[in-house]
Amino acid sequence: MFIESPVVQRMINALRRLPGVGRKTAERYCLHLLTMAPSEVEDFCDAIGTGRAAITWCPSCRNLTDETPCSICSDPRRDQSLLCIVERPVGAMALEKGGAYRGLYHVLHGVLNPLEGIGPDDLHIDQLLQRIEAGSFKEVIIATNATAEGEVTAAYLAKRIGALHIKVSRIAHGVPMGGGLEYADDMTLIRALDGRALIS
Amino acid sequence: MFIESPVVQRMINALRRLPGVGRKTAERYCLHLLTMAPSEVEDFCDAIGTGRAAITWCPSCRNLTDETPCSICSDPRRDQSLLCIVERPVGAMALEKGGAYRGLYHVLHGVLNPLEGIGPDDLHIDQLLQRIEAGSFKEVIIATNATAEGEVTAAYLAKRIGALHIKVSRIAHGVPMGGGLEYADDMTLIRALDGRALIS
Repeated sequence: MFIESPVVQRMINALRRLPGVGRKTAERYCLHLLTMAPSEVEDFCDAIGTGRAAITWCPSCRNLTDETPCSICSDPRRDQSLLCIVERPVGAMALEKGGAYRGLYHVLHGVLNPLEGIGPDDLHIDQLLQRIEAGSFKEVIIATNATAEGEVTAAYLAKRIGALHIKVSRIAHGVPMGGGLEYADDMTLIRALDGRALIS
Repeated sequence: MFIESPVVQRMINALRRLPGVGRKTAERYCLHLLTMAPSEVEDFCDAIGTGRAAITWCPSCRNLTDETPCSICSDPRRDQSLLCIVERPVGAMALEKGGAYRGLYHVLHGVLNPLEGIGPDDLHIDQLLQRIEAGSFKEVIIATNATAEGEVTAAYLAKRIGALHIKVSRIAHGVPMGGGLEYADDMTLIRALDGRALIS
C-alpha cells in the first residue's frame, strides 16, 4: 500500500522530527499533506524553507532574528543596563509576551550538561563574558530553567559574571500565580519558602 | 522580535494547516525548525515535496498510490469479487492494518453533505457505479463512517448499487471489543441491540 512506499516513509520520518510528534501523528500529518493539492504542499514547503533561510542568530545576543543585529539589540528604547540570560529563544519570547522586561537578552542555546558533553565552550560563554565586559550592564538576570542543568548553569554563570564585579540575580521560583499550594510539587514549595519576602 | 517577522508568520500559518495544529503548536514546530540546521530543514521540505509529488490517485479505486494502478488493484491474489467503499484513504489503511479484509477498495474522498454543497458528482459516484458494472463483484461492503453524513451516504450508495442487482452490505456498528457497556454512547448501544445476532 502507498503508506509503505519509501517516499511516503521518508515523509513520515521527516515529520517525526517535529517536537512531540510520534509515528501516529506523523502518519496523520502525512496523509493530510497527501490529500492537499500539490500546489498547496509546494507553498507549505516554500513557507518553511524561506522562513528558515531568512532567520539567523543575532551576532550580539544569539537570539533568532531576521535582521542583523536583532530588533531588540538595535532598539535604543530598551534598557541597556539590564541583561537577561535565557536557555532558548522560546524563553526570551515568553518574557517578551509578558511585557514586564525591557532590557536586553542573551540566548545560550542550551545548558551545561557534562553527561552529554556540553561545556562552557559549546554555549560560547566567553562571548557572553566579552559582551558583558564591553557593555554598560548594571545587572545580569539569569533566567535559565528550574531544572538540575539550568540550576548548575545559573550557578556557573553567577560565579563567572560575579568575577566581573557586576550584580547577578536569578529569577524567583515559587508557586505560580493562580496556583493552589496543593498543586505545587515539593521542590517548588521548598523554593517558595526559601524565597519568601517580608511584606510588613 | 523574530516571531513577528512576516517570513516566520508565514511559516507558522503553513504549519497550522496540519490537522489538529493550532497557533501554539505551530509556533513550537516553527521554533524547532528554526533551530534545526538549514540543511536539515531543506531535507525536511524535500522529503515532503518529493513524497507529495510521487503520490497520485489510483485511476481505478481512487486510493492514494505511488504506482498506477495501485498495489491492491493490481494484486491478483486479492478477492476480485469483494469491494469495500471507504470515505478516506485512512479508512482503507485501517482495514489493511487489521488484515481481515482481502478484497478491493474504493475511496470516495468525502461524504455527501448538502449543507457544504457536496453531492454525488463531487464524490464521482458515476465512476464508482461504472467500475461495479464493469467488474465481477458479488458483494459491495459500505464502510463509510458512523456519522450522520456517513450514514446518509451509505443509504444513497445502497440504493444506487442495489439497482445494479449486486449484494450491498454495511459494516457492523456496536460496542467495540474490550469496551464496557458503560463507556458506549446511547447511539452505539441502540445499534448494538439492533444488530444483535443469535448465538444459540
